[in-house]
Amino acid sequence: MALPGPLLTDLAALLGPRLSTTAADRALHAQSESYMTAGQPDAVVYPNSTAEVAQIAALCAQHGVPLVAWGAGTSLEGHALAVKGGVTVDFRDMNRVISVHPEDMLCTVQPGLTRLALNHALRDTGLFFPVDPGADASLGGMASTRASGTTAVRYGTMRDGVLGLEVVLAGGEVIRTGTAAPKSSAGYDLTALFVGAEGTLGLITELTLRLHGQPEATSAASCGFADMAAAVDCVITTIQTGLPMARIEFLDPATVAACNAFSGTDLPLCPQLLVEFHGSPEGVAEQAQRFGAIAADFGCTGFLWAKATEDRSRLWKMRHDAYRAILASRPGATAVVTDVCVPISALAQAVEETRADIAQSGLPGPILGHVGDGNFHAILLIDPANPQETATAKALATRMAERALGLGGTITGEHGVGMGKLPLMEAEHGAAWAVMGQIKRALDPQNLMNPGKLVPQPKVGS
Amino acid sequence: MALPGPLLTDLAALLGPRLSTTAADRALHAQSESYMTAGQPDAVVYPNSTAEVAQIAALCAQHGVPLVAWGAGTSLEGHALAVKGGVTVDFRDMNRVISVHPEDMLCTVQPGLTRLALNHALRDTGLFFPVDPGADASLGGMASTRASGTTAVRYGTMRDGVLGLEVVLAGGEVIRTGTAAPKSSAGYDLTALFVGAEGTLGLITELTLRLHGQPEATSAASCGFADMAAAVDCVITTIQTGLPMARIEFLDPATVAACNAFSGTDLPLCPQLLVEFHGSPEGVAEQAQRFGAIAADFGCTGFLWAKATEDRSRLWKMRHDAYRAILASRPGATAVVTDVCVPISALAQAVEETRADIAQSGLPGPILGHVGDGNFHAILLIDPANPQETATAKALATRMAERALGLGGTITGEHGVGMGKLPLMEAEHGAAWAVMGQIKRALDPQNLMNPGKLVPQPKVGS
Repeated sequence: MALPGPLLTDLAALLGPRLSTTAADRALHAQSESYMTAGQPDAVVYPNSTAEVAQIAALCAQHGVPLVAWGAGTSLEGHALAVKGGVTVDFRDMNRVISVHPEDMLCTVQPGLTRLALNHALRDTGLFFPVDPGADASLGGMASTRASGTTAVRYGTMRDGVLGLEVVLAGGEVIRTGTAAPKSSAGYDLTALFVGAEGTLGLITELTLRLHGQPEATSAASCGFADMAAAVDCVITTIQTGLPMARIEFLDPATVAACNAFSGTDLPLCPQLLVEFHGSPEGVAEQAQRFGAIAADFGCTGFLWAKATEDRSRLWKMRHDAYRAILASRPGATAVVTDVCVPISALAQAVEETRADIAQSGLPGPILGHVGDGNFHAILLIDPANPQETATAKALATRMAERALGLGGTITGEHGVGMGKLPLMEAEHGAAWAVMGQIKRALDPQNLMNPGKLVPQPKVGS
Repeated sequence: MALPGPLLTDLAALLGPRLSTTAADRALHAQSESYMTAGQPDAVVYPNSTAEVAQIAALCAQHGVPLVAWGAGTSLEGHALAVKGGVTVDFRDMNRVISVHPEDMLCTVQPGLTRLALNHALRDTGLFFPVDPGADASLGGMASTRASGTTAVRYGTMRDGVLGLEVVLAGGEVIRTGTAAPKSSAGYDLTALFVGAEGTLGLITELTLRLHGQPEATSAASCGFADMAAAVDCVITTIQTGLPMARIEFLDPATVAACNAFSGTDLPLCPQLLVEFHGSPEGVAEQAQRFGAIAADFGCTGFLWAKATEDRSRLWKMRHDAYRAILASRPGATAVVTDVCVPISALAQAVEETRADIAQSGLPGPILGHVGDGNFHAILLIDPANPQETATAKALATRMAERALGLGGTITGEHGVGMGKLPLMEAEHGAAWAVMGQIKRALDPQNLMNPGKLVPQPKVGS
C-alpha cells in the first residue's frame, strides 16, 4: 500500500530530502541478515533529533501508519522488517555521543551510534562499553533486542548495560526512564521494559549506558580439546568455580575449519575454547593459571596464547567473522541461525543432543557460542532455492528451542524474537505471553509500533 | 467497611482458621516500621500454596475487594498498609526453600522466606544470597521493593538477584516469568517489571534467585576520617578506581555515637567507613592494601580490622542495628527515614547539603548509607506528638529528594515508593509516570492489587 498523501506531504515538509520513498531505499530496508523476507516499508525517514522522531510518530498515529525502527540492520531474526509496511525510521543520522561522564562511568548516546564508534570515542577515557555481539550493531538496536555476546559472562547483557532511556511513544509523547544514580526503587522498571521490547512499545531516541574501566591487563588464548564433551565440561567447571572469565567461547571443529579458511588462521581442527582474562597483571596471571589447571583436568590438548594486542585482535576478529566464515564455507548458502540458552548444568546435554540432531539431518550446521552463559548457536546452512532444506533447518531450529525449554532454558539467549522466534513464544511463556500483549495494547492501542512482532497477534478476521 | 458476607464465607471454606478477622490480627497488619499509619485490612489470610493465593485473588476479584501482600512487615515506606481496606495476604506460611541448584547457582523459594533463613538453609552448599537490606526481610517483599543494602555495590540489587518469578495476577491467573538460563532475549522482561512493583501488579508466589559463591576469604574494617567530605571523597575515588568492594558503608558521627551506645562498641566519634573485601586470600589482601592507600590519601585517621568471623559479625550487627540505635538515641521518637541515591560524582555535594539542611532544622538527623552506590539515608527523629516536628521532617525529606533529582539521582535508592514517596513520583518520572499507570490499568483494571500505591491515583470524584 502507498502512504496517505497528506502524511507524505507532512513528512516531506518536516524532513525534506530525509524522507525517501525510492525503490532502492525501500528495498534496502527490506533486507536482513537472516533468511527471512517480508514486505517493504512504504517510506524511509532519517530523523536527526528526538523532536523529529516525536513528530514522525505523531503524524503516523494520525494516519494509522506503522513505524519500524532501523539501526545498523544487523539483527538476525528479521526484527526490523516492515511486515505491515509503513514508515521505517532509520537512525543513521542520530549517531552522536551526547555526553560522557567518566567520574560516574556513564555516557549518553543516540541510538544510531554503533558500539565500535562508541568505543572509539571512549578510547582516551580509560573506559569502554563492553557489550559485544560481534557485529558492529547500533546501540539502539542492541538495547531493543537485549543483545549480549562474547563478554556477557563478565559484564552482563544490555539489560545490565542500559541505565536509562529516552523513548518516543506511539502518538509522539517523549518519556525518560531511569536516572543517573546507580540504582533506584522508584516504581516500575520501565528501562528494563523497553530493553528487549524490539521497538514494539516505542522508539528509543537516547540511551544512558554503564561503562567499565579498560582492564589494566588482558590476555587471551585458544585451547583445544579432544572432543566437544570435554570442552563443554571444562566451561561448566570454570563457571561453577567462579573464575571471572572475560570471555569463554566455544567453536566446534566445523567452525574452526570455516574460520581457518576465511581468516587465514591455523587453529587445530578440534573443539576449541577461546578465552580472555581481564584484570591487574597479577590477577590476569592468576586467572590464567587457574583456568589452565581446569583445562588440563579436561584433557586440553594445547594452549595458543595471544598476549600481544595485535594477536588478540586477530583472534577476536576471527571469532567475530565466524558467521561470515561459516556462510562462506558453503557457497551460495543462506543461514538459519539458532540461539538457545540453557542453565549451565544442562549445557553439555544440550550441545550433544543438538550435534547429533544436526548430524542426522544431513545439513551443515557448525556450532559455536558464548558457552559461559549457557548460550550457543548452530548455523544451519541451507540452499535458499531448496525448500526441503529450509524446512529441515526450521524443524531443527524448532527442536533446538524446544530442547532448551525442556532443560529450563530459553528459545533465544541474545538474538531476540523478531519473526523467527514468534511461533515459539507461547511455548516459553505460557499465560505470561498474554500479559505482554496486554502491556503492548496499553502503550500502543493502535498497534503501530513494529506491528506483527513479539506479542500474540490478532487472529485474522478478528 | 466489612467484607461482603459471601466472600468471607468462601474464604473461610477455603482457608478455615487461616482466615482471620480478629481486631488483633487486623491491627498487627496495620503497623509498619515507618511513621505512617493508614486504615486496617478487613481480614488477614495465611495461604499455604500458590493455588490458595490464586483462589483468594479470584474470590476478591469477584467481589471487587483489594488485596495487599504482607511479608515480614519491615518495609520503611508503608508499602503493605491497606489504605483501601480489603484482604491482607500474609505469606508467613509460604516460607519454604523449594529447590536449590548449586550447579547453576540458583534456588527457588517461596515469598515468605526471609533472607537469613535462606542463607541458613544454604550454609552447607558453599553458596549464599547476597542482597542484604539489614532487616531480616522476606524475599518476596525484598523483590517487591527492589531492595538492596550493604552488598549491592558488589552483588547488585534485587533487580539483579531475581531470575524468575511465579505471580498470581489480579483475578487469580498464575504466570511464570523468566527461565533458569542465565540470560534471555525472549520478549518483555516481565521479571524486571514485577520486581519493584510493590504488589500493585500481582502477588509473587515463587522466586528463582541467583546465588553466589561464599567468598574464600573475607576481611572487614572500620576506618575513621577527620570530616565527612574526606570520607565521602574516599568512597568516590575507591569506586572510580574500580576496586571490587563487597561493602562500603558510611556512618556520620551521630550515627557512630548512637551505635556505640546501642551496641556497646567503641568506634571513634568521627565519620567512619565500614568496608568489607571478598575474594581469594591474596585478592583480599591486595584489595585491602589498595583501599588502605586510597584511605590514607584522604587522611584516614585509623583502621580497626575485623578479620575473625566473630569480629566481622559484631561489626555488621552493629551496622544492621543502626536504625534501632538511632531510634533509641531519642527516647520516644519515631523516624522519618529518607533514602536518596545520586550519581557517585554528586555524593559529596548531596551529603554536605543534606547535613547543613538538617543542622538548620534543629532536628536530630544522623546520616548513614550505602555510599558505594551513591545511596544514603538521614534518619530524622521526631516526637510523634509534635506536628511541627513531623512537618519539619517531611519538608526536609522532600528537599532531600528534590536535591537528589537535581543532581541526576532518584527519590528512593532502595526503600521503594510506598506511601511516603508517592507525592514525589511525578517529579522523578514526568510523563513516564503515566505510562506506569497505563501498565497498572492493563494488568489490574479493577485496581485491586495494593490500591493507592505507586501509580498516579484517580482524582477524587472522577
